[in-house]
Amino acid sequence: MKPEQRKCKTAIVGASGYSGEELVRLLLNHPYAELTTITSRQYAGQPLSRIFSKFGNHPKARGLTFSEPVPDLIAREAEVAVLALPHGVASEVAVPLLERGCRIIDLSADFRLRAASTYADFYGHEHPAPALLAKAVYGLPEVYRDDIRKAQLVASPGCYPTSILLPLIPLLKAKLIEPNSIIADSLSGVSGAGRKAELDYLFVDCNESVRPYGIPKHRHLSEIEQELSLAAGENIVIQFTPHLVPINRGILTTLYVKPVQNGLGEKSANPAAQVAECLSQSYGNEPFIRLLTDKALPDTKNVVGSNMIEIACRFDPRTGRLLIMSAIDNLVKGASGQAIQSLNLMYGYEETAGLL
Amino acid sequence: MKPEQRKCKTAIVGASGYSGEELVRLLLNHPYAELTTITSRQYAGQPLSRIFSKFGNHPKARGLTFSEPVPDLIAREAEVAVLALPHGVASEVAVPLLERGCRIIDLSADFRLRAASTYADFYGHEHPAPALLAKAVYGLPEVYRDDIRKAQLVASPGCYPTSILLPLIPLLKAKLIEPNSIIADSLSGVSGAGRKAELDYLFVDCNESVRPYGIPKHRHLSEIEQELSLAAGENIVIQFTPHLVPINRGILTTLYVKPVQNGLGEKSANPAAQVAECLSQSYGNEPFIRLLTDKALPDTKNVVGSNMIEIACRFDPRTGRLLIMSAIDNLVKGASGQAIQSLNLMYGYEETAGLL
Amino acid sequence: MKPEQRKCKTAIVGASGYSGEELVRLLLNHPYAELTTITSRQYAGQPLSRIFSKFGNHPKARGLTFSEPVPDLIAREAEVAVLALPHGVASEVAVPLLERGCRIIDLSADFRLRAASTYADFYGHEHPAPALLAKAVYGLPEVYRDDIRKAQLVASPGCYPTSILLPLIPLLKAKLIEPNSIIADSLSGVSGAGRKAELDYLFVDCNESVRPYGIPKHRHLSEIEQELSLAAGENIVIQFTPHLVPINRGILTTLYVKPVQNGLGEKSANPAAQVAECLSQSYGNEPFIRLLTDKALPDTKNVVGSNMIEIACRFDPRTGRLLIMSAIDNLVKGASGQAIQSLNLMYGYEETAGLL
Amino acid sequence: MKPEQRKCKTAIVGASGYSGEELVRLLLNHPYAELTTITSRQYAGQPLSRIFSKFGNHPKARGLTFSEPVPDLIAREAEVAVLALPHGVASEVAVPLLERGCRIIDLSADFRLRAASTYADFYGHEHPAPALLAKAVYGLPEVYRDDIRKAQLVASPGCYPTSILLPLIPLLKAKLIEPNSIIADSLSGVSGAGRKAELDYLFVDCNESVRPYGIPKHRHLSEIEQELSLAAGENIVIQFTPHLVPINRGILTTLYVKPVQNGLGEKSANPAAQVAECLSQSYGNEPFIRLLTDKALPDTKNVVGSNMIEIACRFDPRTGRLLIMSAIDNLVKGASGQAIQSLNLMYGYEETAGLL
Repeated sequence: MKPEQRKCKTAIVGASGYSGEELVRLLLNHPYAELTTITSRQYAGQPLSRIFSKFGNHPKARGLTFSEPVPDLIAREAEVAVLALPHGVASEVAVPLLERGCRIIDLSADFRLRAASTYADFYGHEHPAPALLAKAVYGLPEVYRDDIRKAQLVASPGCYPTSILLPLIPLLKAKLIEPNSIIADSLSGVSGAGRKAELDYLFVDCNESVRPYGIPKHRHLSEIEQELSLAAGENIVIQFTPHLVPINRGILTTLYVKPVQNGLGEKSANPAAQVAECLSQSYGNEPFIRLLTDKALPDTKNVVGSNMIEIACRFDPRTGRLLIMSAIDNLVKGASGQAIQSLNLMYGYEETAGLL
Repeated sequence: MKPEQRKCKTAIVGASGYSGEELVRLLLNHPYAELTTITSRQYAGQPLSRIFSKFGNHPKARGLTFSEPVPDLIAREAEVAVLALPHGVASEVAVPLLERGCRIIDLSADFRLRAASTYADFYGHEHPAPALLAKAVYGLPEVYRDDIRKAQLVASPGCYPTSILLPLIPLLKAKLIEPNSIIADSLSGVSGAGRKAELDYLFVDCNESVRPYGIPKHRHLSEIEQELSLAAGENIVIQFTPHLVPINRGILTTLYVKPVQNGLGEKSANPAAQVAECLSQSYGNEPFIRLLTDKALPDTKNVVGSNMIEIACRFDPRTGRLLIMSAIDNLVKGASGQAIQSLNLMYGYEETAGLL
Repeated sequence: MKPEQRKCKTAIVGASGYSGEELVRLLLNHPYAELTTITSRQYAGQPLSRIFSKFGNHPKARGLTFSEPVPDLIAREAEVAVLALPHGVASEVAVPLLERGCRIIDLSADFRLRAASTYADFYGHEHPAPALLAKAVYGLPEVYRDDIRKAQLVASPGCYPTSILLPLIPLLKAKLIEPNSIIADSLSGVSGAGRKAELDYLFVDCNESVRPYGIPKHRHLSEIEQELSLAAGENIVIQFTPHLVPINRGILTTLYVKPVQNGLGEKSANPAAQVAECLSQSYGNEPFIRLLTDKALPDTKNVVGSNMIEIACRFDPRTGRLLIMSAIDNLVKGASGQAIQSLNLMYGYEETAGLL
Repeated sequence: MKPEQRKCKTAIVGASGYSGEELVRLLLNHPYAELTTITSRQYAGQPLSRIFSKFGNHPKARGLTFSEPVPDLIAREAEVAVLALPHGVASEVAVPLLERGCRIIDLSADFRLRAASTYADFYGHEHPAPALLAKAVYGLPEVYRDDIRKAQLVASPGCYPTSILLPLIPLLKAKLIEPNSIIADSLSGVSGAGRKAELDYLFVDCNESVRPYGIPKHRHLSEIEQELSLAAGENIVIQFTPHLVPINRGILTTLYVKPVQNGLGEKSANPAAQVAECLSQSYGNEPFIRLLTDKALPDTKNVVGSNMIEIACRFDPRTGRLLIMSAIDNLVKGASGQAIQSLNLMYGYEETAGLL
């Protein structure tokens, strides 16, 4: 840790949802970022500790009170704002904040897509600020590290996309897998649905229940396919099936892909070793990527509360398919932790600051 | 109900595991079967109600005491024995019981395969009684109903196989899907692992955890591929990935398959409708198959405690794949309930007796 | 079972909450009651199977469609109505139904108290139909069996009260415990809160959480103290602390009481044996009361899905206190099952019909 | 943080149970303590990351390998050893380590009692090292802070005792509650049972289950009553009922006590305010005690993962009793976190080092 680091004044806009609450936790314990502002329409005027008693006697939490998300106020108190708002709402706040000189890390889907038309196709309405799409950087540090450092506007990836993109991007770049063979079967904890008072997410309706949902055209497909296509250098369409499972946090993704044949139409004798080698070369020094070896397989309980992704790979000689599995905490590496990772890059801090 | 039905005297051999306990529950409430014998090496000599207090004041449970699994004793007290024993152990009991004239419904894997060599390949040791394989009937009533009626030895299917075979067999018979495109991604509750004192299945190690296991060559593949191949009329190899999820009971299976092209290489415009029509024709009158319509998708909580399987289908026009999803209670339709369904057929009772 | 029994036409008013859904389950499987009517403002006009797919292919569920709770309609189709409505709303429906000749079993708190003033004290508003209070019978079959048989209006007990009253009433009648020493510490599953879309009952906010609530003056105290006072022949005030625990169903109550001294100020040498003897004499033939012996202690998992209450007792010689523990399924013995038990009494069926 | 602090070399003896694993987590992230040694008979010779993949790429975890618990080895590598061993086993290791000059923080019950006879009474065998009892300091920092600083041997409190003692000790010292009125009703997560491969703690047998156990004479009573008696200046006997609830971590304790009358036999008009005032004076500056105000009540989910205890109090004017409720994480404030808090005191670090 370098105590001489300059503090960056940070606001959380939308601090009362699950991701917002997790941002509060992470930023209160960050060595350099200073949490100056937390907003919530619902709780404006109330102290943080009344709404979240768990922060009640944190030394840095005293004096933090929810305010209305007023751009002038936020821009006066903070140089960087992390937005944990629903899509569509985020851009309404991002535009005036950018105009006032704030840097933005947005957890919503508003700035993740390069093409406004794709946004309209998947989200069902016109993009509210298409001019900003070209400025936004997709906030996957392992892929866009240098761009994030300089970004004014970071579009932090969705939770499912993070669990799918990190394992696949190096393999597509290295042309080890067939681009159009990809099936992603994902299991998500209930916090992925957000803190919404809906019958579907009541304890009794989720506990002792496992179910698919949102098929076959989940909104996250748009950013997944955009980023996979960029990695592959060709247009990719994938199969993606999300399921809801009764855990608070975590995403477990099982990917089914086919290894490429070489120019002679021959298959590799050991595609799993090729994949492991490729991932190791790409990610061997990444602080938040854990490549499992031996018999270990990903398990959400090994990543919960951390910014880590676990990845393992197996080849099935009976079918000729590769199975690649990953596990993340949807609220940390899949949302708030990854956002802090970007913030660390943007302000020149160690990338792991506040995240280990 | 037909009170004039002849009672069949029934034994449960291995009544202290999860499936055995569920057999007790079902048989105590069965209108015709009379539970005369329950065995357990571990609890021999102890009353049922001391081990499972929940049966403590069931009118039919009084007097039931666990005994050692002695063939002479079982055969004297019962005409049919349901075996809920580990594979390998079941055949040791089945052979002498068959010799003494008992009919057998076996919940283990011992008699599910037609070829002893496949058993050796998947279970790692020679089959202990290969001569019996030709006599055994695979106890999937919706497929082998007539054979079960006359069987002396029913090999009741595994839980994963039940969730995979019921949706797929009619589609393969009707040649609606490509036989070698099948991927089965399954999520199982923890009771699927059996009542075993192992660290992997402790509450703390399963709760808030989701994880794949047993890949890529799970033992259940052997019976799945055998039955799918018989339905298709050709040899089938599938991809199968089981996962453990923190629920007590239930299996949710998501199947990825490709619709066949017609003779002209054309694809159906609406493969999901074709699948729905095929399943409806095959299963429209089945009492334990619920074909979901409209927006409904399978959910384990809708089948827990019942002998039902829920099935739904979607076509993804973006990828050209069909998604077929099913949900069962692994201990009922996936084990003990299906065994009772076979028993009902074997003794001429209504197929739903004791199961609604 | 006596197939010659006359069927009673039965309505469920408010069939979309947890208790209503459980009533549907129980009545669909009841040998004599015929479910003719189900109402739900929210789902009026929709088939039962569209809202609860789990009833989708139940033979008796076909044709059941939710209707508006219109008294004329209900009274035309049913002779008895089970009301699963919020307190305050139930009496609005009960009054016109009684006028039209229907018998009523009410699951709400509206008719449980004998004094309208107590209702006003605990529920915060005047009782809506005080004249009916004298007609209502408190629907605890083990205590008021004969009155229930003849009742026009049964006020079915609350879930916490059932778990507290059944163990204590015989002991107070027999003057074995000090009336004003009672502490009841209860743990309830989340379905006890009803199917309400509120943040407090979301999966993420209940899972991995244990918490007290509603202290120190929970509404259920009013009926608990009323019935305990009647049993003791004197006015009783108790301590009652409910807690929410992450299970779907079940209440576990731990009662702390002091054994009485005899006329000479002497304590019994073995108060636990006295309690066991008293409970055995009172309840030895009760079909739904399981008195645990030896080392067994109540466990909610042993009663879930059944109409059973488990009771055990221990004496602590170090403190001189008795510990009495009970377990029920809050939706069955604590609500819908107990209501069916009353219905069986009202129509002369075996008391266990549809409940074993 | 003070980087100039001297590092203390630390060993964890018994690092493969739940408390041991939590000690690893906390010590890997501690700014001053240096984890040099981890022992486990079961896993000796294996790298930490193979057994607990979640520590797999922690920068400080590389090179850590489980060793046999050999005193010479431990004493050579570490100046302080934290023992996470079963009772009885801990003293076998503690004695030789103390002889070799190590300071000891013991998580077992071996050194918590002042009288060897009480140990024999509650643990069923003679104390293995009675001479050490006089040297041991009970490791409750809020009560014995100064003694802990100088201690060679700290006996870290049990989880239940921590949840009961912290709220009650100041009240007994201030003579605000009647010493012999205390009832403690506690709910514990399953990790409290330790990582033991026993049927009782399997997922299926704990999930959807709530049950009392270990009554009426739980072993923890011995240390609870010892410390309460010391605070009160008189001999105290309490009622204590532990329950198992399906959460991984956490203890929720509900205490029932009577406020004292003053010398005139008069009761305070507002005992809850008196209690709040007393707790505030005692604990107002404690970093790990959160005194809840307004309507807030303790909830295990607000303390999980932290070294915090939440406490709230209510007075029930109907019964004249006080209800005091507390929540802790049994593995942190109830075990490993509290041990680190002691270590911080023993080595002159900020008391919160590595715990915020």
